[in-house]
Amino acid sequence: MTPSPRADGRANDELRAISFERDATEFALGSVMAKCGHTWVLCTVSLDEDVPRWMRGRGSGWVTAEYSMLPGSSPERIRRETKGPKGRTQEIQRLIGRSLRAVVDHAALGERQLLVDCDVLQADGGTRTTSITGAWLALWDACERLVQAGLVESNPISQPLAAVSVGLIDGEARLDLPYEEDSRAEVDMNVVVAGDGRFVEVQGTAEGSPFSRAQLDELMALAEGGAATLFEHQRRYTATRPEPRSIGRPD
Amino acid sequence: MTPSPRADGRANDELRAISFERDATEFALGSVMAKCGHTWVLCTVSLDEDVPRWMRGRGSGWVTAEYSMLPGSSPERIRRETKGPKGRTQEIQRLIGRSLRAVVDHAALGERQLLVDCDVLQADGGTRTTSITGAWLALWDACERLVQAGLVESNPISQPLAAVSVGLIDGEARLDLPYEEDSRAEVDMNVVVAGDGRFVEVQGTAEGSPFSRAQLDELMALAEGGAATLFEHQRRYTATRPEPRSIGRPD
Amino acid sequence: MTPSPRADGRANDELRAISFERDATEFALGSVMAKCGHTWVLCTVSLDEDVPRWMRGRGSGWVTAEYSMLPGSSPERIRRETKGPKGRTQEIQRLIGRSLRAVVDHAALGERQLLVDCDVLQADGGTRTTSITGAWLALWDACERLVQAGLVESNPISQPLAAVSVGLIDGEARLDLPYEEDSRAEVDMNVVVAGDGRFVEVQGTAEGSPFSRAQLDELMALAEGGAATLFEHQRRYTATRPEPRSIGRPD
Amino acid sequence: MTPSPRADGRANDELRAISFERDATEFALGSVMAKCGHTWVLCTVSLDEDVPRWMRGRGSGWVTAEYSMLPGSSPERIRRETKGPKGRTQEIQRLIGRSLRAVVDHAALGERQLLVDCDVLQADGGTRTTSITGAWLALWDACERLVQAGLVESNPISQPLAAVSVGLIDGEARLDLPYEEDSRAEVDMNVVVAGDGRFVEVQGTAEGSPFSRAQLDELMALAEGGAATLFEHQRRYTATRPEPRSIGRPD
Amino acid sequence: MTPSPRADGRANDELRAISFERDATEFALGSVMAKCGHTWVLCTVSLDEDVPRWMRGRGSGWVTAEYSMLPGSSPERIRRETKGPKGRTQEIQRLIGRSLRAVVDHAALGERQLLVDCDVLQADGGTRTTSITGAWLALWDACERLVQAGLVESNPISQPLAAVSVGLIDGEARLDLPYEEDSRAEVDMNVVVAGDGRFVEVQGTAEGSPFSRAQLDELMALAEGGAATLFEHQRRYTATRPEPRSIGRPD
Amino acid sequence: MTPSPRADGRANDELRAISFERDATEFALGSVMAKCGHTWVLCTVSLDEDVPRWMRGRGSGWVTAEYSMLPGSSPERIRRETKGPKGRTQEIQRLIGRSLRAVVDHAALGERQLLVDCDVLQADGGTRTTSITGAWLALWDACERLVQAGLVESNPISQPLAAVSVGLIDGEARLDLPYEEDSRAEVDMNVVVAGDGRFVEVQGTAEGSPFSRAQLDELMALAEGGAATLFEHQRRYTATRPEPRSIGRPD
Repeated sequence: MTPSPRADGRANDELRAISFERDATEFALGSVMAKCGHTWVLCTVSLDEDVPRWMRGRGSGWVTAEYSMLPGSSPERIRRETKGPKGRTQEIQRLIGRSLRAVVDHAALGERQLLVDCDVLQADGGTRTTSITGAWLALWDACERLVQAGLVESNPISQPLAAVSVGLIDGEARLDLPYEEDSRAEVDMNVVVAGDGRFVEVQGTAEGSPFSRAQLDELMALAEGGAATLFEHQRRYTATRPEPRSIGRPD
Repeated sequence: MTPSPRADGRANDELRAISFERDATEFALGSVMAKCGHTWVLCTVSLDEDVPRWMRGRGSGWVTAEYSMLPGSSPERIRRETKGPKGRTQEIQRLIGRSLRAVVDHAALGERQLLVDCDVLQADGGTRTTSITGAWLALWDACERLVQAGLVESNPISQPLAAVSVGLIDGEARLDLPYEEDSRAEVDMNVVVAGDGRFVEVQGTAEGSPFSRAQLDELMALAEGGAATLFEHQRRYTATRPEPRSIGRPD
Repeated sequence: MTPSPRADGRANDELRAISFERDATEFALGSVMAKCGHTWVLCTVSLDEDVPRWMRGRGSGWVTAEYSMLPGSSPERIRRETKGPKGRTQEIQRLIGRSLRAVVDHAALGERQLLVDCDVLQADGGTRTTSITGAWLALWDACERLVQAGLVESNPISQPLAAVSVGLIDGEARLDLPYEEDSRAEVDMNVVVAGDGRFVEVQGTAEGSPFSRAQLDELMALAEGGAATLFEHQRRYTATRPEPRSIGRPD
Repeated sequence: MTPSPRADGRANDELRAISFERDATEFALGSVMAKCGHTWVLCTVSLDEDVPRWMRGRGSGWVTAEYSMLPGSSPERIRRETKGPKGRTQEIQRLIGRSLRAVVDHAALGERQLLVDCDVLQADGGTRTTSITGAWLALWDACERLVQAGLVESNPISQPLAAVSVGLIDGEARLDLPYEEDSRAEVDMNVVVAGDGRFVEVQGTAEGSPFSRAQLDELMALAEGGAATLFEHQRRYTATRPEPRSIGRPD
Repeated sequence: MTPSPRADGRANDELRAISFERDATEFALGSVMAKCGHTWVLCTVSLDEDVPRWMRGRGSGWVTAEYSMLPGSSPERIRRETKGPKGRTQEIQRLIGRSLRAVVDHAALGERQLLVDCDVLQADGGTRTTSITGAWLALWDACERLVQAGLVESNPISQPLAAVSVGLIDGEARLDLPYEEDSRAEVDMNVVVAGDGRFVEVQGTAEGSPFSRAQLDELMALAEGGAATLFEHQRRYTATRPEPRSIGRPD
Repeated sequence: MTPSPRADGRANDELRAISFERDATEFALGSVMAKCGHTWVLCTVSLDEDVPRWMRGRGSGWVTAEYSMLPGSSPERIRRETKGPKGRTQEIQRLIGRSLRAVVDHAALGERQLLVDCDVLQADGGTRTTSITGAWLALWDACERLVQAGLVESNPISQPLAAVSVGLIDGEARLDLPYEEDSRAEVDMNVVVAGDGRFVEVQGTAEGSPFSRAQLDELMALAEGGAATLFEHQRRYTATRPEPRSIGRPD
């Protein structure tokens, strides 16, 4: 059986249209609107001149992340999680935070905390990977501004970071799944890649039937290709530095 | 003592720059990015083909609202309310819902519910009034689309609705307070006005010292003027109808 | 159409029967049973020789309030809010606290907190306004006892405070609505007035249709008249001071 | 060592002053203000023309109870339990409900529920026992009114019920402990007795050191005596029936 | 009517098969698998080198207990109490903690806390009494190890402690009720006895009809007999001391 | 640098001692005590003759899982999660349920639910993988008993399932990490393998520094070897069937 071509006409190894809007909002230390196709995530970074209790007095900092979907982000309204984040939400925000921390030098950051918020304004698959790729840029901007403000000596981010989804649909490996593909994929995989090409997270799940070692290899190769494209976008973004911004509401 | 002129150079009876972006997101039935100065609120409307249990079988509909501030919307990060909405949040979302319901013909809507979400992307004072004015537009678009889809006969919204804040600062009555003025106002007032010039809500609070009947009158007059300007903006917006939109994620 | 006379035979500008029982309970620093018609609220004041964390070290005090309806206070039992106060409850207790603080000199109170509890034993409309008027008296007694105990130099309450409800029923402005009127009022308004005749809070809500500026004026005038009568009651009450009371359970 | 006489001058086998005010509030089906010394409990009964899900269709009813202390009921303010009832509260309300159910013929009640609320207005020891004794009277009144309204054929309460506290203080057995004795008792015991003299609940706890079989016997005898006196009070109360009361807010 | 003999063939004053497995798990300071018939409870003791805030600086320690049923412990699965312990659970864990504290010299323990966890692996009636009897042994072992480690001078447990259930079934007093008897008992009683034969807790509840003084006496006598047998088991257990165990995960 | 040999003397590709005790408890439909070194997990399966609401009427069943650590399972006591499961817990129980469902034929199960509980009695690393491997056996037994009871035609489990942890410690790939290795691993990976050798879940996380494609391959090979050994154990276990067991508490 010949698999059906992708609904949006992309090749199997092609990302959706990508864009990163710097300083999408005006008050945060770093703020990026990351778009990957119809998936839009607003990533903002706030500074807390304190660290969690268990880290105090060690002289090193911390990066943590939260994730949320706005109720209107999906055709079927998403309920606000006012009684504690659900399992899926916790899983995603733990993944984002862990991934970012893997490329931050906590000692260089000093005893302060950077809180990254990924709020999904529109959801069409790949919200967690778009969050990670956008959050890295917002974090980079925030760190640049800490350098500009003389709070840290040099940007404590050690290398780039990007995330992509890959999956098996009708037995075929595809890169960057929109909702329509994601919801019927046999295997769904999220891969977080560091700038040096090595892996920070590999999470593959068989939704339908198990996957073989050869299929895993094929998916990993697709992911590596997608990450390379994202690193290109990030390089263009970080070629210019953000405008200095005083911390606080502008007069 | 001559009161200091306003930091942003406005006259006391002048609104901040206003804009309403139609269909700011792509999946909601109605979606407006309402901006009033540096205050930005994303208002989306979702359809629920059901009503709360206590209303079933009456053949009439319901409009309800939720309000939230994104964590990065303020220079000091706002914590997510994951253990239930705080008192201030509940007060605001009750106000938004009540105000919108005052200009909706629930019988004409039919036995369905429209859920309005006001998510503050950036907060610089007046988030609740900006939410109401923007939410009315998003609701109008959503209702137009229900008409286009043949689900209701005619738009069940009976008249326009707009909200403004007014206050006393250094003894002087001012319209549309930004955060800097709001935080030091002696009296803080929110007024919701219907298109016919009558009032839907009047909420005045003495933060510092009580206010006299004459001062109340002065503030009410300012509010009426501000609402008139907002009705102008809304008239321009509703002069054209929204594009038809199928309910659901686009193919 | 001639509007129906009031069910309880009152004139439109007439309050229900009012009474304030001093020291309705024996252990609180101040304790008043406030009755307004069939609405009964027990207002007690407790002393906390501490202030909320964010106020420490400033040398000034704080007054806060809580509100609750006993389950048996209404013909249809009211559920206990054991999973957090509902929106209405939070709105009311925020209103009570804010109103009381407007007439307290926090510096004169010293670094301590007075907690005011308004527990509704019987609810027949106007529970929030009866709470405020009664709470002011209980707070006054509590402050007098702090003076008697030598803890503060003079009573830190700057002036009297009273609250009334007014509303439009069948197009007619009426003072002090019982449940039966309140539940079918077109406009419902709560006004908190200071002893000098100025306003601390004005909250008007159109339940049915919006209200005009002229109607607002008429309601405000009714409210001023009602407050004047309540100030008379309060004057008689405060003409005598409370018995000294040691803080703690009597032997 | 001769034990100190009781602070309030009572003999060891003497109850505090007891009173039961019928229809202490106006809207509940039954409502009793039960006072035992300085301990005051408002007991109200509400009717729910439904039963818990697990009982439906069996044709028999249910009685349940809730217990709460008002914040101002104690010299040190009691926090409201807005995050779920504490262990002590749950223990007490389970005890009250279980005790009342032991003297109710659930089949005779029919498929409806009576909810008993015991709200402590003033707490000076023995709040749970005063609650039970007062609740029984409020329940009796409520059932009489169900008979008057023709909803049940005859009062489904099978016999009287009363509860007392007893304890060992300085090695001496005493009846009806106020707070001051309760807080330093070596053994604390609550006994619920049915009108035929038999026991519904016996709960004895060694706070300091264990108690012997002889001491248990002495405490049980004291409890039986106290209950006999309470049954006298109840007999006088039930000698007259409550006024008929329509269910709902009076016009 | 001749009552039916017990389903498991026991005499009315006979306990089920009893066993206590020392060090049932390897990491806790004390750990006992207590079995009473088909009821199995794992009792573990953990050390916290701190005490609750309200006890700090007094130089004396604290013992507290928690109780839980594993979901698979019963033929009908027991839901996890992830939204706070239910009333029954709180009642039981308060009982266990209070009972244990009655035989511990808190000053001798020093300013540290021992946390006792009773997790029911299999439930066939008598879970709270089996918990108490087993917890006492686990606590004894834990205290012995504190002595071995030189943290306390001598074992701070003052005397043995055991608990039994007794009840009236078909009018007949029986010792140690399995689920099948417990669920249809007219009277259900739990008695906690100290090594000197005196009582720490007596909790009797009439499930069906009240019980007389004579029946209470009969039940107390059965309980005393059962406790005597349990003390025999405990004596054999404590005749040997536990192996020394370093606090922490073994290498 | 030569890496230190493993503390417990194992080769890098060697599992810890493995055992599975069938019917470790008596009331559950399936019950296995799974031990992997010092990690002990009690896996029980309960039947619910119903499915979640969203699945009703489809004729097919569901398998879900919960995971919990007993407080005494670790040298530092684990707090009970009484305010909702934490992120880690939710992540693990979602993983267990998803993995089991991958090898169950839901249509063959019929419209009923099997609830798998994994309660960790002792935790020394690898609790989630030991849970999965043990849960599969308990589920197999439960399904066999459904067949024996005539409720399903044939065992709906399609193939075996086992899980192992692998990781990089000091740059070296190792199989089946105990706590001491797990807590200092640079890369931590959990792999769930189906009986046909294909993968159900692959979750790799860089705790220290990212990992290369070659390292991923090495870890995957180790995991495949470990799973093969576990399949051997499972084959021996399933060579005999469980004793028939009536559903319910034994008489």
